[in-house]
Amino acid sequence: MEEHTDGKAKVHYTSEDVLEYHTSNFPGNGKVEIISKTSVKTIRDLTLAYSPGVAVACREIEKDPYNNLPKYTNVANQVAVISNGTRILGLGDIGVAGIPVMEGKAILFKVLGAVDAFPFVLNEKDPDRFIEHVKAMAQNFGGINLEDIRKPDCFYIERTLDKELDIPVFHDDQWGTAIVTMAGLFNSLKIVDKDIREIKVVVNGAGAAGLAIARMLLDAGVKGENLMVFDRHGPIYSGRIEGMDPYKEEIAQQINPKKLDISLDEATNGIDVLIGVSNKNAFTKAHVSSMNDNPIVFGLANPDPEISPKDAIDAGAVIVATGRSDYANQINNVLGFPAIFRGALDIRAKRITENMRVAAAKAIASAIPEENLDVNHIIVKPTDPEVMPREAMAVAKAGIEDGVNQNDMTPEEVYELTKKRIAFYNKHFATVVSLRKNPDV
Amino acid sequence: MEEHTDGKAKVHYTSEDVLEYHTSNFPGNGKVEIISKTSVKTIRDLTLAYSPGVAVACREIEKDPYNNLPKYTNVANQVAVISNGTRILGLGDIGVAGIPVMEGKAILFKVLGAVDAFPFVLNEKDPDRFIEHVKAMAQNFGGINLEDIRKPDCFYIERTLDKELDIPVFHDDQWGTAIVTMAGLFNSLKIVDKDIREIKVVVNGAGAAGLAIARMLLDAGVKGENLMVFDRHGPIYSGRIEGMDPYKEEIAQQINPKKLDISLDEATNGIDVLIGVSNKNAFTKAHVSSMNDNPIVFGLANPDPEISPKDAIDAGAVIVATGRSDYANQINNVLGFPAIFRGALDIRAKRITENMRVAAAKAIASAIPEENLDVNHIIVKPTDPEVMPREAMAVAKAGIEDGVNQNDMTPEEVYELTKKRIAFYNKHFATVVSLRKNPDV
Repeated sequence: MEEHTDGKAKVHYTSEDVLEYHTSNFPGNGKVEIISKTSVKTIRDLTLAYSPGVAVACREIEKDPYNNLPKYTNVANQVAVISNGTRILGLGDIGVAGIPVMEGKAILFKVLGAVDAFPFVLNEKDPDRFIEHVKAMAQNFGGINLEDIRKPDCFYIERTLDKELDIPVFHDDQWGTAIVTMAGLFNSLKIVDKDIREIKVVVNGAGAAGLAIARMLLDAGVKGENLMVFDRHGPIYSGRIEGMDPYKEEIAQQINPKKLDISLDEATNGIDVLIGVSNKNAFTKAHVSSMNDNPIVFGLANPDPEISPKDAIDAGAVIVATGRSDYANQINNVLGFPAIFRGALDIRAKRITENMRVAAAKAIASAIPEENLDVNHIIVKPTDPEVMPREAMAVAKAGIEDGVNQNDMTPEEVYELTKKRIAFYNKHFATVVSLRKNPDV
Repeated sequence: MEEHTDGKAKVHYTSEDVLEYHTSNFPGNGKVEIISKTSVKTIRDLTLAYSPGVAVACREIEKDPYNNLPKYTNVANQVAVISNGTRILGLGDIGVAGIPVMEGKAILFKVLGAVDAFPFVLNEKDPDRFIEHVKAMAQNFGGINLEDIRKPDCFYIERTLDKELDIPVFHDDQWGTAIVTMAGLFNSLKIVDKDIREIKVVVNGAGAAGLAIARMLLDAGVKGENLMVFDRHGPIYSGRIEGMDPYKEEIAQQINPKKLDISLDEATNGIDVLIGVSNKNAFTKAHVSSMNDNPIVFGLANPDPEISPKDAIDAGAVIVATGRSDYANQINNVLGFPAIFRGALDIRAKRITENMRVAAAKAIASAIPEENLDVNHIIVKPTDPEVMPREAMAVAKAGIEDGVNQNDMTPEEVYELTKKRIAFYNKHFATVVSLRKNPDV
């Protein structure tokens, strides 16, 4: 029996626990189930739900699809969680074997955001054909959550779909991680009393998450000359030849203006914030001890961070965050996607804007009142009952300000409705879970 | 306020009733909802359902996708209900406005067959590209239910997918209607005491349903020389030029060997069974009165049959069936697809064979004990509690006999599990429906 521990002791589980979690769910295996929201008991019900009565709903939609499709179908509350299986967690290109991740995401969407999410791993690795498949499906959804797609395809796919579809397209591996990282950083800066416009930052890792974090740091006020982003070839800068792609070049044009080509060991000298989205042991104690006073170190590699919290603290770090649930300060993208889509769907957003992403990060940050912040509590837990409704409200507000909304929902209505949706789900459905192991029928 | 009546008085509804049925379902509009089968309450739950714990399930699937994908995901209990929107009910090519039909079918799949069905209208009318989209999605499903696709594309799409995919592909407009028609016919023949191998039949209509009915009549024992199929150009026969396609030609080669090119008025002379899958008023009293003794007349055009039951009976018909719920003997394809897929999914069928279709028809027929049959009760109601489990069992049995099963489920286990699945659903979920109009949270 292989044993796992997500860190020291807090969350301990065996392989058997995971497999039992995935198999003991009557009436079938896996994690999702589709149910009817309407009564289907009598011949009259059948007549209204299906032929011939349903034709009335079809004709109304045919007359005015823009207004009536969201009215008479569930489309406006549905997102597709779609991958091509090319970069599943840390497991690489495992194709269809990534479906449990998509099902997992689908149920988190529901439980935390009351969003109906359909899980998919499409059997298509060519980015252009993948885009065509998603475009053919898109009219059935209020939004598209892209997931676990290798780079640089993930950037190309996200941007193309964002441009060509009139619903929100969100690549969670980029923006989900970046938004929650920014939330943690906003609170860290409050604790150490530094101004984001003055801090010096190094991001180690120029993958989906690294480039999105860099983008959001710039959007949030970090100056280009105070930001360096490293990949395996060293710091990126405009015009660098080796290992570049158009997405790195785009960020490169806004940072490291002196085109410094120095090592990470030199780059950490005097910086305020060191963020890793790279791999185990990428940071040393020497990196941390070379930083400015009150070092903030985020080592987000999973399952093993760039530096252990103990080593980082020994070397002088005052705030350390990781991706793990067993250490203080877990940067968990579960804090992002459910409420971001909840807010976006509720206002029927055409897309998710930069301001909506920043608003989400700020809402997550402010879920901990300033007086309760400390170096071991920079980020709220996803199980906090207020964070999702507040975040959905903030996302909706920013979307309305940016003019991407397509109905007249107010942010306050989004807050109230989100609370009500989540409460309804928990009251009526979450409670059935325990009956599935021994269904008493 | 437009009023509708699905016939005389039995099922009466207004447009408002239909729209209210489609809009009053908290937490959103439409008819479907996705829920979690597993607990998502604690950080430990998150760890098992999603990153990092879920990786254990992914790795097991990667090692052995054939055995472990159905074990650790819901894929094996999922079907896609997919249309391209080109022939929605009697409404024609209305594209995305067909989604309410797909959602309606999805909930019938669940309530009647405990199958998780994902509703889709793909935005793609080209048959080859449509096939490519479905193939890219197929690994997420245990079966594909094609729906409301114009002919002859529907035949091409169904056959191509049936050949290229290793999961059941079923075009309900063909086989669903044909199977339930055959069930009604089997019982009708018992009542009038005629042998299927001796009867003469005319099918009026050579669309999806008409050709499938002809196919099943031949499979069930009707002799080719005793079967004629009409389209708007007259009877089809091998080598006919006008209005033919490869799918009509295929049937034509097995029927009407004398290549008779006669009118429907002549063709009904002395026949035993007249089946219409065409349009309103296609049959006259003269057609019926020209038939052999004990005429059996199925007028399945919706919403108005080829001949009213009253006129058919006045002209001498002893058994009359229609597609309507307000007359006796409704041929309703709802009797077919939920249990056909239930049986096919349970044995993990690679495809749905001819024998499985015939077995479904016979199981539906035998749901009424022979002693209870009469001219006004040739077919069971879909709300009968025994028909779905029995039909699923019969389909499973035929699939096992044909060797298309891929596990060791027995037909008896399929019967028991189907009953249990439906009971579990009704006990825990169907009851929540009434709370959705005024959610008390």
